[in-house]
Amino acid sequence: MRTSSSSAVRRAAGLAAVVAAASAAALAAPPQPRRASLVVTGGTVITMDAERRILSPGAVAICGDSIAAVDTPAAIARRFVAADIVRADGAVVLPGLVNTHGHAPMVMYRGLADDLALMDWLQKYIFPAESKTVTPELVRVGTRLAALEMIQSGTTLHTDMYYFEEEVARATKAAGMRGVLAQTVIGFPAPDAKTPADGLARAKRFMEEFRGDPLIVATVAPHSMYTVDAESLKASRDLARTFGVPLVTHLAETDDEVRRSLEAHRLTPAAYLDSLGFWDTPALAAHGVHLTDDDIALLRRRGVALSHNPESNMKLASGAAPIVKCLRAGLAVGLGTDGAASNNDLDMFEAMRQAAFLHKLTDKDPTAASARTVLEMATIGGAAALGLADRIGSLEQGKRADLIVVSMRAPRQTPMYNPVSHLVYVTRGDDVRTTVVNGRILMRDRRMLTLNAPSVLADARRLAARVREAVEAAKPPQSSTAK
Amino acid sequence: MRTSSSSAVRRAAGLAAVVAAASAAALAAPPQPRRASLVVTGGTVITMDAERRILSPGAVAICGDSIAAVDTPAAIARRFVAADIVRADGAVVLPGLVNTHGHAPMVMYRGLADDLALMDWLQKYIFPAESKTVTPELVRVGTRLAALEMIQSGTTLHTDMYYFEEEVARATKAAGMRGVLAQTVIGFPAPDAKTPADGLARAKRFMEEFRGDPLIVATVAPHSMYTVDAESLKASRDLARTFGVPLVTHLAETDDEVRRSLEAHRLTPAAYLDSLGFWDTPALAAHGVHLTDDDIALLRRRGVALSHNPESNMKLASGAAPIVKCLRAGLAVGLGTDGAASNNDLDMFEAMRQAAFLHKLTDKDPTAASARTVLEMATIGGAAALGLADRIGSLEQGKRADLIVVSMRAPRQTPMYNPVSHLVYVTRGDDVRTTVVNGRILMRDRRMLTLNAPSVLADARRLAARVREAVEAAKPPQSSTAK
Repeated sequence: MRTSSSSAVRRAAGLAAVVAAASAAALAAPPQPRRASLVVTGGTVITMDAERRILSPGAVAICGDSIAAVDTPAAIARRFVAADIVRADGAVVLPGLVNTHGHAPMVMYRGLADDLALMDWLQKYIFPAESKTVTPELVRVGTRLAALEMIQSGTTLHTDMYYFEEEVARATKAAGMRGVLAQTVIGFPAPDAKTPADGLARAKRFMEEFRGDPLIVATVAPHSMYTVDAESLKASRDLARTFGVPLVTHLAETDDEVRRSLEAHRLTPAAYLDSLGFWDTPALAAHGVHLTDDDIALLRRRGVALSHNPESNMKLASGAAPIVKCLRAGLAVGLGTDGAASNNDLDMFEAMRQAAFLHKLTDKDPTAASARTVLEMATIGGAAALGLADRIGSLEQGKRADLIVVSMRAPRQTPMYNPVSHLVYVTRGDDVRTTVVNGRILMRDRRMLTLNAPSVLADARRLAARVREAVEAAKPPQSSTAK
Repeated sequence: MRTSSSSAVRRAAGLAAVVAAASAAALAAPPQPRRASLVVTGGTVITMDAERRILSPGAVAICGDSIAAVDTPAAIARRFVAADIVRADGAVVLPGLVNTHGHAPMVMYRGLADDLALMDWLQKYIFPAESKTVTPELVRVGTRLAALEMIQSGTTLHTDMYYFEEEVARATKAAGMRGVLAQTVIGFPAPDAKTPADGLARAKRFMEEFRGDPLIVATVAPHSMYTVDAESLKASRDLARTFGVPLVTHLAETDDEVRRSLEAHRLTPAAYLDSLGFWDTPALAAHGVHLTDDDIALLRRRGVALSHNPESNMKLASGAAPIVKCLRAGLAVGLGTDGAASNNDLDMFEAMRQAAFLHKLTDKDPTAASARTVLEMATIGGAAALGLADRIGSLEQGKRADLIVVSMRAPRQTPMYNPVSHLVYVTRGDDVRTTVVNGRILMRDRRMLTLNAPSVLADARRLAARVREAVEAAKPPQSSTAK
């Protein structure tokens, strides 16, 4: 997957055949140009298709919500009359990035407390803040802020687990983003449900509301094997199976979770969930930091996909997930940022770089987690992990038109020998110029089209004052004299 | 070092006394406002002084090349008449970032070859590229490109080791940056010197040319203990001592280096250099990935400072330097990016985040390498490592005016509870708006004042074609039939 200027088109396996077929058709009957709602043309197109073709320059024609063709700019110009054109000269065009794990509204808690031991972080900051401030309004305002950040940094689909998930879904849809969104079920009183049964009922209503939605996959997320009872875990599985959507959960994030699982069940978390038949339906497990080789083989047999969150795992000192092993075993692995309270941003470019750095370090191998591998995880791999590889994750005729245009002209991106290396090692979310989801432009040359950025930021700052008060109030009063 | 809005001024230790003293002086005699060449006012000023004061809002008055005062905006407005004013509302003002290790011209090789085993990377790409393309022109063009990237991302001082170092120095000075720049001495034929003796002679001429320069500290860098003979190592030390500048070298970067040192000398690299008396003059060692506890104690006794390069060490799978131990032992530790061939950018904000993530992971401790600690390494710690803490590294009266203004208004930086956390965990080099070195504005609101960016980029792209050709020519001819 290496290219240098336009010669890549000729060298690209498979493309010659496509062009030849098109030419043959052209000879048989003079072509009638087809109307495209949008053409993106002139950049280096990294398709992430099965042959990993790179067209430099290339073009993508979009009709409605779908990709009608990926070809050379000249061929697309011959075949389509474009209602709208985005020029991508000097830029890279690639599939929209797929974030496979997050808690969007937690942007409201970003940077509230860092560099703390996990229990201090949770008990002194995150839990007090959540218990006092998680309302439908905070979820709505937080999701809008998260969507703004994600669209600006090239994420076109986010996977979410939180409370009041219908608010997350409405805000995601209004912003024009795609989402695999899961209502949380948890074994203690939550802001939106007193019991797991209440949570399950909420989840069912939520899944009914968004059934068949073109942008939203509504599902259920039992929080984890250590916070949800066996019956609720099974009921969650049944709900996901009934609706034909992937089940979402946290798995083996910390060594403490594994230790407690072994004590309580004499089984690892993955094996315990398997003993309940939890994996009998398509599922996405987040983290998997402390998976054993047997766990990996089990997840592979059960077809469970993994979301890898390198930044969160490093920042919270959870550890390094055995991702190279998981990929070698054939698991579908996507990348995620986790929530902004633990990362602290939602930039998938940072997640890619971090994944590459992390596994080279822990595997003591500079060839591990190559730029190509992590770009796969962030695009087609994530789509596969969510069971959506037939619809998104690559730029191919017939797939939904989710793509981004990324500038490659900054000094830190100069010179450019290899665009894939540059996407991972020197590019930031801020280099994304244009974001398209389902054929609709959400950001054009950095201008937001579906969100009013100043009002989103103002709302967030207003609610942040309430969060700060909640945390201050939860602190024990400080004595004015030393003891 | 935590603050929330303007109340931080009142809470900040030490500031009350300063204000009181100023008020007392004001009562004694009506103040005559002094002329300031530049005032930066209105932002949150993170001083990095001994008390780690944060003024929110604060202001910095600059007279010529030095800081005349750091105070509240109102106090600065009373005390100074400003010839020029930079508004920093909604931004953070902090000391310019100090990059303690790099090879600036190697930006010309960034992304040329990634994800390779070290020897493949060096022998198939970097060495052929360097042997055929390192000329004074490439060093000049590369340093300009590196300076552009560094000024844009808030670095005000870079530490360098390369060939034709006088070209690095001239380009650094012309860009207005500060540099601790070292002519390389190495034990095999280099692009600018056939022998170590030639390298030493070049170093001496270079150090004479820039002696006493207000921006450039010119010194010598024996490449490492495994590439330079004992006599040349000692001669380098003598040269640095004669000129009163810090000696610069690579140290214990890979386990292979340590193994070979133990085989050849029955001593670790640090101990072997000590046996030569190499550490008998102030020195800065880059990397220190594989330092033993005894090495750390030895470096502490000898007053050797360390440059930590987390991104390079991870990407090349060198390992994790024992930085928490080094800091605890009292070593002066600065941060560095290393050259762009191994990183692949020169963004110190990325280096800060990476340092925080890396040590939390490897120490299994989320409190390790806090945001405050890594910000110290990137500012006052780096200044101390270079023996320049009396002149730069913090915003204090009498120090040289090296500072940056960093925007904090992006969606990914919203809300902001703690500016220090945000600098490390959600800020990028691209958020830097204004960069000041030695009292001179090098970039103002993203507009470059000392470098012509389009011409720097065009020159770099032109030379990159030559680099690509050199690498292609060095590859063995590929057989057209499979064997």
